[in-house]
Amino acid sequence: MLNNKSKPFYHQKIGIIGGGQLGKMLAMAAAPWSIAITVLDKEPLSSARGYTHEHLEGDPLNYDDILKLGLSQDIITIEMENVNVEALLELQRLGKKVCPSPEILRIIQDKGEQKHFFSKHHLPSSEFEVFENLQDLLNAINLQRWVFPFVVKSCRAGYDGKGVFVIHDPKDLIGLPENRYLIERKVDLAQELSVIVARNAQGECKAYPVCELHVHPQAHLLSHMTCPAQISEELQQKATALALQTIQAFELEGIMAVEFFVDQNGQLWLNEVSPRPHNTGHHTIEACITSQYEQHLRAILNCPLGFTETFFHSAVVNVLGPEGMSGSPVYHGLDQLLAFKGVVPHIYGKKKSQPHRKLGHVTILADSPENLQILLDKVQKTLYITVI
Amino acid sequence: MLNNKSKPFYHQKIGIIGGGQLGKMLAMAAAPWSIAITVLDKEPLSSARGYTHEHLEGDPLNYDDILKLGLSQDIITIEMENVNVEALLELQRLGKKVCPSPEILRIIQDKGEQKHFFSKHHLPSSEFEVFENLQDLLNAINLQRWVFPFVVKSCRAGYDGKGVFVIHDPKDLIGLPENRYLIERKVDLAQELSVIVARNAQGECKAYPVCELHVHPQAHLLSHMTCPAQISEELQQKATALALQTIQAFELEGIMAVEFFVDQNGQLWLNEVSPRPHNTGHHTIEACITSQYEQHLRAILNCPLGFTETFFHSAVVNVLGPEGMSGSPVYHGLDQLLAFKGVVPHIYGKKKSQPHRKLGHVTILADSPENLQILLDKVQKTLYITVI
Repeated sequence: MLNNKSKPFYHQKIGIIGGGQLGKMLAMAAAPWSIAITVLDKEPLSSARGYTHEHLEGDPLNYDDILKLGLSQDIITIEMENVNVEALLELQRLGKKVCPSPEILRIIQDKGEQKHFFSKHHLPSSEFEVFENLQDLLNAINLQRWVFPFVVKSCRAGYDGKGVFVIHDPKDLIGLPENRYLIERKVDLAQELSVIVARNAQGECKAYPVCELHVHPQAHLLSHMTCPAQISEELQQKATALALQTIQAFELEGIMAVEFFVDQNGQLWLNEVSPRPHNTGHHTIEACITSQYEQHLRAILNCPLGFTETFFHSAVVNVLGPEGMSGSPVYHGLDQLLAFKGVVPHIYGKKKSQPHRKLGHVTILADSPENLQILLDKVQKTLYITVI
Repeated sequence: MLNNKSKPFYHQKIGIIGGGQLGKMLAMAAAPWSIAITVLDKEPLSSARGYTHEHLEGDPLNYDDILKLGLSQDIITIEMENVNVEALLELQRLGKKVCPSPEILRIIQDKGEQKHFFSKHHLPSSEFEVFENLQDLLNAINLQRWVFPFVVKSCRAGYDGKGVFVIHDPKDLIGLPENRYLIERKVDLAQELSVIVARNAQGECKAYPVCELHVHPQAHLLSHMTCPAQISEELQQKATALALQTIQAFELEGIMAVEFFVDQNGQLWLNEVSPRPHNTGHHTIEACITSQYEQHLRAILNCPLGFTETFFHSAVVNVLGPEGMSGSPVYHGLDQLLAFKGVVPHIYGKKKSQPHRKLGHVTILADSPENLQILLDKVQKTLYITVI
């Protein structure tokens, strides 16, 4: 309902911090409602450029740049977690709506704080210990408080598997830089799952079908994902319930990707969460009526959430920059892909390829898991990248 | 395949003449491939603004403005037919790809030429006669060459039912302005259908499922449309075949809406064609994997055409400016619509409402014609526009 105190949802101005592919797709989701989007990015030619009403050049970690973006907006949101939280707190004090809240971002930005949050809210996550510095970490290991193998993670600024070290013996610890660290028990991994969930200010919550992640062995990056995950009904329900419990614990307004490990005993362990549209939710653009991007907008605008059921078996293949070279990317086989039924390529428009950089993705839709696998093989054989 | 002589399809620069809702949705369809779009529109704040790499202010009927747009592009296309054809001919001479070709636009811009084209290519269309001026028209009627009732159409610059007059007796002719005119036998109308078809330079052709049009009684504008049309299999096949025959006759590269009358005997008559994305194809955004907008891009880029099957019964309701008032539009019931499963509102972002002006549309998806009708009624009861 309209009321005099506030603008209707379609007149709200939304500022997005970050203009990578997630910022671009979020901006595009606002287009059917003609909502005015402003993006802040370091690069004047970000991926989102050309899909926004305004494009500001600025650093997501710079206080003044965030403030400059936020002051002209009604709602400020993100496509990345690594942003200046102090500036967002100030914008909140000034009456701006900030989604996710700065408090949530402060927790998410520190892997130790995230684990403490899981633990405090009884969300099942592998045992851990947080260390303020490298020396404390090494002391604990020397005292044999932790048994090899275990996982060491930098608490801050690690993403896409960076800052994550599997430690098999003391040699693996050589050369670690000074940081705040976390030791985590290594889960005896059988599968990785992701569930995208959304919540609005009224507390309405919705979950998308469970996705199964397939990780690139060298790059520790998602190689492709499939949805719905081919797992038992019971495990699907458990993962979905736990993802909803997680977003409710955070009281998030917006969308959240909740990533899980499944161990060899079929036990679920919360790995990490991202309070924003996520790489494991691209398929929702084609496979669902309401994409994760539109769902995020609905959630932060406090609109009714959209329907999350999927009409296809779907997969998303990441298009990554080839190893050992960088330069202008050339996409081979892309026009052949356009002739495959149910195959939808997305090219992010990045000017420069770097090893394992995300340059695009291909969504694949099929009527059965078997046909999905056939198409997936075809796509992976047809598409390749070179640089010039 | 890539070749050295030309850029790959995703590096082609596309200029769109017209930045209304069709230009906006065409620009959005280029976003997943990050194709650089430039729009030319009279209005600095056109609907397409914010969804393009560049936005030029200029008149589609002005020679210099079209040339200015086209010179920096690889391909020039349109969202409206009323454009300067001489400028497009010049761009073609300069080696630019113009889709549809200026020759097709010259035919389409004149309803008399369009009828001659149908007749020359044996495409069934009601009997007609073309008159160079008003006096010739009146003479023919005085000589009783035509029996009441019949239809008089201005050959030029009529759109959305403007310039179309049903003549029941001589009084209806009073006040007709000077123009080139067409008399058409009035079809004893049972139904109106539309088929969206596409063709690329290699001659590959595809048709979307047949749509049924429901016209607004006062405004002579499409009130809503449903797809697939609830007609016999035989009529569907005939309409589809005739639409494909029509686009092949034009040798169009791009998309074409082919509109038909069905008379009381179930006979099909070609009404008119539009060589561009069309109001009767909005539902393809949600109901098909490849929308009419993406299909147009594939066709003009000479890529393989996308698949046209629909996964739903769908309807599109036009959101029109209310009668008797103009001003800033306010959309009531829009947030309620967001809670209806299968209902997708589109707001074009026009700053000013005028009577019957197209301000948006609502796509409705359902699993049966019955459930579609229920949702259609609900949407029409829930959404209304006022102006302030």
